[in-house]
Amino acid sequence: MRKVHVIGIGAGDPGQLTLQAVGAMRSTDVFFLLDKGEAKADLVRLRRDMLETHLPRGTYRVVEARDPERDRTAGGAAYSPAVGDWRSARAEVYERLIAEELGEDDSGAFLVWGDPALYDSTLGILQEVLERGTVAFEYEVVPGVSSVSALAARHRTGLNRVARPVQITTGRRLAEGFPEGVDDVVVMLDAHQVFRRYAAQDVDIYWGAYLGTPDEILVSGPVAEAAPRIERLRAEARERKGWIMDTYLLRRRAGER
Amino acid sequence: MRKVHVIGIGAGDPGQLTLQAVGAMRSTDVFFLLDKGEAKADLVRLRRDMLETHLPRGTYRVVEARDPERDRTAGGAAYSPAVGDWRSARAEVYERLIAEELGEDDSGAFLVWGDPALYDSTLGILQEVLERGTVAFEYEVVPGVSSVSALAARHRTGLNRVARPVQITTGRRLAEGFPEGVDDVVVMLDAHQVFRRYAAQDVDIYWGAYLGTPDEILVSGPVAEAAPRIERLRAEARERKGWIMDTYLLRRRAGER
Repeated sequence: MRKVHVIGIGAGDPGQLTLQAVGAMRSTDVFFLLDKGEAKADLVRLRRDMLETHLPRGTYRVVEARDPERDRTAGGAAYSPAVGDWRSARAEVYERLIAEELGEDDSGAFLVWGDPALYDSTLGILQEVLERGTVAFEYEVVPGVSSVSALAARHRTGLNRVARPVQITTGRRLAEGFPEGVDDVVVMLDAHQVFRRYAAQDVDIYWGAYLGTPDEILVSGPVAEAAPRIERLRAEARERKGWIMDTYLLRRRAGER
Repeated sequence: MRKVHVIGIGAGDPGQLTLQAVGAMRSTDVFFLLDKGEAKADLVRLRRDMLETHLPRGTYRVVEARDPERDRTAGGAAYSPAVGDWRSARAEVYERLIAEELGEDDSGAFLVWGDPALYDSTLGILQEVLERGTVAFEYEVVPGVSSVSALAARHRTGLNRVARPVQITTGRRLAEGFPEGVDDVVVMLDAHQVFRRYAAQDVDIYWGAYLGTPDEILVSGPVAEAAPRIERLRAEARERKGWIMDTYLLRRRAGER
């Protein structure tokens, strides 16, 4: 039976690989590296570096594939269907990779930034591939250090305050308002810097980009003070590197113990 | 200057140690293992095993200390003050350990289960020790694989659904009602199996205890079906081992895409 590993490889620092992840990598025949466009070539290279560091040369194969682009022009109510179409298109790519590149007894792996359980579609896509029923495989998940944990560690802060909840959400959701019932909110996938709208409130931000890499940038403080700085640094970095991966924690001070 | 590492060591499986964590352990002179009572002796032993596996004998020292017990009889409105007193009592212990067991140029480490940013008090206590001003030290945080990520990996599920939020909260909070605005909730520190009150609703549970250890137990399914099973397995395991560490994800089916 074909076997697929979904391996969390940490948020960017190669030191965030777990021993278990290295072990799973060593038992993998074929690595599938999906490239989402020229800007993400850096991320493919970082994963290739990890393989070269930890695996003996000649013991594995790397297959690069083009990850179908999402239709980002579809907004509002169209969001879910566009994501759905995109997932199906990706499922076809994953299905073909598993069916054509893995022999009956081979194992393949997808290397996922951060933790595969947080805002990553690999598990959902594999489930969809299985449901199509054209190729059979077993799969297992190796958890990783999430970008959320990496962010908190670099700022040396907890995600939750004592005995209180924390919510992890998207920029799109935050744009609908600060979530109910929580004062600590981690925001992922925010291309529009929605945090700026909290500048007039007692909210602190802990922001980080390219976490754990040599390009890492960290900014923290009251949103009113930090937002202009983040905006400038973010634009400069994005211009320089061609892409950005950032995340942040918003913390309402009113809720302070 | 004294240096303190706060090292996330994963949720129980020694393979969840990151390369960075092992590196930080290797540069540590003194490990502080805090024992919260006889039931937690297992957890001290597991950490000692990790040290013996990764560090050359004779290159480090282990100091065990008694972690002050929390007054668990204080409920309701008294919860926060009781936690506050407990933290102060712990701060005194941590302060003494750092001042008395670390030489001026030594480094010490606290090994934290899961990730130090999630429902762990070490960072808050160290901040409190620094504010007291009686002992100076630098500290840094090594993020770890959280029990939340470990739970999701073992159940091979994501924590959030596509483009939607997830909340991480406590059993005590869940007892006040299912959080607003989310359909996916991870519950930590629930001694009272609050999930049982969702048996009549369209809610699935993904539960795990002793994650990543040989004692691991996993149960998933609709709460109505899974709850009695979890209740029985939990009581048996707790009886057998004298302690239990468990966590779970509640997923409202009404919110399914």
